[in-house]
Amino acid sequence: MGTVGGAVGGAGSSTLLVTGIGELVTNDPARPGMLGIVPSASLLVADGRVVWAGASGAVPPESAELAATAEVLDVGGAAVIPGFVDSHTHLVFGGDRAAEFEARMSGQPYTAGGIRSTVAATRAATDAELSSRLDGFVAELHAQGTTTFEIKSGYGLTVDDEARLLRLAERVTPETTFLGAHVVPAEYADDAEAYVELVVGPMLDACAPHARWIDVFCETGAFTPEQSRRILSAGASRGLGVRVHASQLAPGLGVALAVSLDAASVDHCTHLTPDDIARLAASRTVATLLPGVEFSTRQPYPDARRLLDAGVTVALASDCNPGSSFTSSMPFCISVAVRDMGMTPAEALWAATAGGAAALRRDDVGHLTPGARADFAVLRAPGYVHLAYRPGVPLVAATYRAGVRVG
Amino acid sequence: MGTVGGAVGGAGSSTLLVTGIGELVTNDPARPGMLGIVPSASLLVADGRVVWAGASGAVPPESAELAATAEVLDVGGAAVIPGFVDSHTHLVFGGDRAAEFEARMSGQPYTAGGIRSTVAATRAATDAELSSRLDGFVAELHAQGTTTFEIKSGYGLTVDDEARLLRLAERVTPETTFLGAHVVPAEYADDAEAYVELVVGPMLDACAPHARWIDVFCETGAFTPEQSRRILSAGASRGLGVRVHASQLAPGLGVALAVSLDAASVDHCTHLTPDDIARLAASRTVATLLPGVEFSTRQPYPDARRLLDAGVTVALASDCNPGSSFTSSMPFCISVAVRDMGMTPAEALWAATAGGAAALRRDDVGHLTPGARADFAVLRAPGYVHLAYRPGVPLVAATYRAGVRVG
Repeated sequence: MGTVGGAVGGAGSSTLLVTGIGELVTNDPARPGMLGIVPSASLLVADGRVVWAGASGAVPPESAELAATAEVLDVGGAAVIPGFVDSHTHLVFGGDRAAEFEARMSGQPYTAGGIRSTVAATRAATDAELSSRLDGFVAELHAQGTTTFEIKSGYGLTVDDEARLLRLAERVTPETTFLGAHVVPAEYADDAEAYVELVVGPMLDACAPHARWIDVFCETGAFTPEQSRRILSAGASRGLGVRVHASQLAPGLGVALAVSLDAASVDHCTHLTPDDIARLAASRTVATLLPGVEFSTRQPYPDARRLLDAGVTVALASDCNPGSSFTSSMPFCISVAVRDMGMTPAEALWAATAGGAAALRRDDVGHLTPGARADFAVLRAPGYVHLAYRPGVPLVAATYRAGVRVG
Repeated sequence: MGTVGGAVGGAGSSTLLVTGIGELVTNDPARPGMLGIVPSASLLVADGRVVWAGASGAVPPESAELAATAEVLDVGGAAVIPGFVDSHTHLVFGGDRAAEFEARMSGQPYTAGGIRSTVAATRAATDAELSSRLDGFVAELHAQGTTTFEIKSGYGLTVDDEARLLRLAERVTPETTFLGAHVVPAEYADDAEAYVELVVGPMLDACAPHARWIDVFCETGAFTPEQSRRILSAGASRGLGVRVHASQLAPGLGVALAVSLDAASVDHCTHLTPDDIARLAASRTVATLLPGVEFSTRQPYPDARRLLDAGVTVALASDCNPGSSFTSSMPFCISVAVRDMGMTPAEALWAATAGGAAALRRDDVGHLTPGARADFAVLRAPGYVHLAYRPGVPLVAATYRAGVRVG
């Protein structure tokens, strides 16, 4: 998979000089895993791209004329960070599962829930309903500093509905993922193999033109490693990049499968064996952790520390979906990752920005060095540590995507 | 202590009819502990007070003319809840302790922190600096749905500085608390008794005119039960209501002391004995739990379930302060209380609204029944469960205090 760096939509045509930045996080790719912090910084943007970022007053001669004529945005000492890259969401769906959540958190029985209830509500929703809801989520993401996001299908589970969800998703992001293999739908409950045939045949035919990625939920109760390999390989042969949901509920063969297929990312990674970690460390597959899931299902958190210490590249993502994690807040994910997963504030911010970009194999987002898309968030705080230090507080004052304010 | 219900500042003079409420939480005091939910509701406000709340279309004859001439606010199916009552904050201070937080969460040593570093920064700050910062926090509280909040002194620890902090605080809230006994300041490190003399003497003289409450940090390393009783009794004899910080770090005698003094609230309650719980259940003292503290210090959470099952009145508050809990988000506190403290979403919302009002012995806030101050938040959600279901997402669309929009 190459990057889709050329596909910058809505790029600003003007030139912008952001000044008065108390702390600029650049995530300079020259030092992977490091925040590349510049105190008292400025950021010069032209045509939606970063032209220069550095200490205020140190604009290089070749950019001086551009800087002198740029529109100035003085952020008054605020911290500026790269826009969040949320590499795992399920944002096209109908209904919600608030009653199921309430029952779960209150220790009450509840039998009408689960993914299949969202599938039924999604199939029943019109395009206009799903699209209007999706636009609301996009606004919510932008308001919280997220500038790049992936969206999976997986609540249609028919040829027409899966393709429909991807068509709606590709309207708002190039990072669309075909997840026909989210769960075996009720109508195939007695014949999962027939459903796999459908997924690798007509469903893939209908969905591949609208997707950049293919994904499978490889877990006991969903799809076996053999079924998963077949589906992912079929997608890869159509030019789709590979991502895998694995090891959410128990250790399994999903991580090994993901690494063997050079998946861009394996997501959840809550229950890993030492061999899984060694495989990840020796690969370029990112381990994407989803703290919202464990938070909202009262499950034990993944051990990010163990992964980082082994040299695995870690991303944080929201997994925003109506069942197991209905947060869309990357700052919230950062605060939980710091409190409960052994990440430092710096590691968590890197994972939520550059880590997400790595999980999408993008080199144009997740950092603020020359050439990057000018995606950034201005914080109501003097430093990035506040994202973990002030949990739950809406700290994103403004969000820019390709140099244009979107939130 | 009576209520301060008469002291409604900034009341709206206009009449407002809020319609299209998908779910109205009234916290009807006729059924303590229950949310008193009305689906498809309207809320009628005049002169800053609730005149009527009930099912849309069921406006009683005596209010019909008022409703017919009122300004209409259609919230389009959103949930409306009582404004949050945050009964425990420390919002007047200088500096921050981001570096201390980062070191703690990264497993690094850090010796320059602690309350005393905030005391030094606060003493060094001008009135204008502290006041400007405080105004920022008030805006932040309003934006997150909080309409009543308490503020403690405790970072001055000299006669002049404690009185100064209370004078600044009383400008923004009537719920001011004299906490000269927050910690023994460095200059009295070898003679805590002399500091207690100062607190019950000249400091109380200077502070009592600016405070509604007196509070003590009754814990090993802070003030002994004997010192605490002396200080609290001195304050009570000056007409101040009693509140106590206790049992944050270990079980102690603080809860028994609080109950014996008919304290309005005992705060933290992380480590309680069965006797403490029995005492609280037999008293009118509220147990105020502060989830942000345990979140931000990686300590075990208090067991709210045990308190609720025993019949104790529970409040949730932010404890917003730069050391142990720099969140000001009551929705965040709710989400953690549900995930980690055994509260249902309904119990947590009640504790963050009516519970906080009980902890401040206020009967004019924390509910939306006739006569209450018209303090409410409009959510970007169809139901209150979303406050826990969507952790970290800024769900407060608008905040009204005494019928006037403030956030």
